[in-house]
Amino acid sequence: MTDPRVEALADILVQHSTEVGPGDLVVIDGTANAQPLLMACYRRVLAAGGHPRLNVGFEEAQEVFLSEANDDQLEFLDPIAKFQADSIQVAIRIRASENTRALANVDPSRLAKTMIARRPVMDQIIENVRWVLCDYPTNALAQEAEMSLSEYADFLYGATNIDWSEMTARLASLKTRLEAGSDVRIVGPDTDLTLRTAGRIWEPADGKKNMPDGEIFTAPIEDSVNGRVRYEFPAIYQGRQVDGISLTFKDGLIVEATAERGDDFLNAILDTDPGARRLGEIGIGTNEGIQRHTKNILFDEKMGGTVHLAVGRAYEFTGGKNQSAVHWDMVKDLRTDAALYLDGELLQENGVFVE
Amino acid sequence: MTDPRVEALADILVQHSTEVGPGDLVVIDGTANAQPLLMACYRRVLAAGGHPRLNVGFEEAQEVFLSEANDDQLEFLDPIAKFQADSIQVAIRIRASENTRALANVDPSRLAKTMIARRPVMDQIIENVRWVLCDYPTNALAQEAEMSLSEYADFLYGATNIDWSEMTARLASLKTRLEAGSDVRIVGPDTDLTLRTAGRIWEPADGKKNMPDGEIFTAPIEDSVNGRVRYEFPAIYQGRQVDGISLTFKDGLIVEATAERGDDFLNAILDTDPGARRLGEIGIGTNEGIQRHTKNILFDEKMGGTVHLAVGRAYEFTGGKNQSAVHWDMVKDLRTDAALYLDGELLQENGVFVE
Repeated sequence: MTDPRVEALADILVQHSTEVGPGDLVVIDGTANAQPLLMACYRRVLAAGGHPRLNVGFEEAQEVFLSEANDDQLEFLDPIAKFQADSIQVAIRIRASENTRALANVDPSRLAKTMIARRPVMDQIIENVRWVLCDYPTNALAQEAEMSLSEYADFLYGATNIDWSEMTARLASLKTRLEAGSDVRIVGPDTDLTLRTAGRIWEPADGKKNMPDGEIFTAPIEDSVNGRVRYEFPAIYQGRQVDGISLTFKDGLIVEATAERGDDFLNAILDTDPGARRLGEIGIGTNEGIQRHTKNILFDEKMGGTVHLAVGRAYEFTGGKNQSAVHWDMVKDLRTDAALYLDGELLQENGVFVE
Repeated sequence: MTDPRVEALADILVQHSTEVGPGDLVVIDGTANAQPLLMACYRRVLAAGGHPRLNVGFEEAQEVFLSEANDDQLEFLDPIAKFQADSIQVAIRIRASENTRALANVDPSRLAKTMIARRPVMDQIIENVRWVLCDYPTNALAQEAEMSLSEYADFLYGATNIDWSEMTARLASLKTRLEAGSDVRIVGPDTDLTLRTAGRIWEPADGKKNMPDGEIFTAPIEDSVNGRVRYEFPAIYQGRQVDGISLTFKDGLIVEATAERGDDFLNAILDTDPGARRLGEIGIGTNEGIQRHTKNILFDEKMGGTVHLAVGRAYEFTGGKNQSAVHWDMVKDLRTDAALYLDGELLQENGVFVE
């Protein structure tokens, strides 16, 4: 008997996230160790009248490929993968990492070659396919989060198996409120940051692309960011962890960046290109089912009572203009001695929205 | 550390069976429980300069599909599967059954619908792709063969990990000898059968399509089969087992068919269509690594010291003309008190070729 929470999550992915209907060609993609959730999705796509296509792989194949492939192989665009992306209506992708550090020693330039080669496939899926990305509980994710597998499964399903129509309604109301305002201020210990969002689109994220989800985000006006922010949670980028980051902004530019651990790496990333020293995103986490930081950005940035600020590239559909090769989300806890203001009025106090 | 026999088998599949070379697009297909062999093939395809594409599935998905799909879904030809078949140079398929009877209660007419719908994919692979089919040891196969998993793995690798270039040479010589003759006689306990093969092509099977392999086969001239054959081994068709079959032929037609167990099923299959009561194939097993019948035709028909006679459809490339929806291989042991004659001269005695 499968965990009933797996069945409930499959319902959410097939019905709420991707709205599979009769005749839809649906790729269900993942690694073999996610079999219960992959099979539960498979059955539900069948029940919805779609054509499910299981595309299972092994996590170890990626590391083998990146370690052993020659340049022709790294730069190969598989025509079948492209045809598949062009043919499907829906893609459901389940991640179930068996080792979150499996690529720690891979040459990043080799990884970059494959990403560039496969870009047409990614672009086609992101632009023209109804897709969702979801994690499945594993010991590797539990280990990263410093939990047992059973505790981690409770944590994960507590974040995914919630009332998403209620979330949709709540985010729609928050979008109206945020777009009516123009000045955001974030206040907390060692933190007082102001930025403008006037005229920008706030995008509600209610489980259509990410699972779990629950955030609303936009891009701040590029030169409007001023003040300082200190992050209590570690920030992870390219599998490396930086602790105790403090950033000081002047007219949009980061003029000082320090970290208690990983300071050199932090500044190296911020020096990647001019856009990497500016903010590309401000997001407000709205998933109250997530109350712990687990070093997995899919979850951390959705945490209720937090905001996240990303240095680097902005999403253009928000109206943001900042360009960069970097997009690094850093999550700021607002649940203790903190507040969020919109046009000088209290929007959230200690992580709780003020009605 | 992977079983070194897995590594050796992967070498055979990638080098001998499918001859993967630079730029070949190679689908490696199988179920997740064959991961060690699938990954070993993946690495070898990379090393050979090919582009490996892992296409993993779950055995349970087939049963779920056949039980739960509606007619539109059963009759759907997946355009991605067709494009894939049209695009690849090589297909390596690994079977690793977890339950050889998983489809025992599936409606055969539903299975037939999917087979018909997917026929263009199968045809394209069989006609235009370098393909090989191989089994991976599992408890289900071991159980069917009445062995432990460890014994079964010894049995399987003993059949697959042999000197295939020696087999190629041996079968080439046997082909010359057989095609120079015209009358075959099979003699043993309760058995004396004659048939003509004059002008027919004897096809050597040396590990290019099946693994294990080791047989040479043709189609007898349709009305030339006379006499009687009794089978010591059980014969399996559509997952059903028939024991103690005796067949009597007159001018090519089976005029009497009896079995100690499964007589009704045997005669029902022979009554499928007119061609089902005639022979479509005679094959001589030449794999001395296979000395046990394991109720798996991929192995049983290759067993050294046996012949197999298939009722029903002939392979046209041998010159055979018999048409039927049926092709049922039945394996006849010739290792005890038995002989095989070609044009009246002893070809094999008690399973051993006479030089």
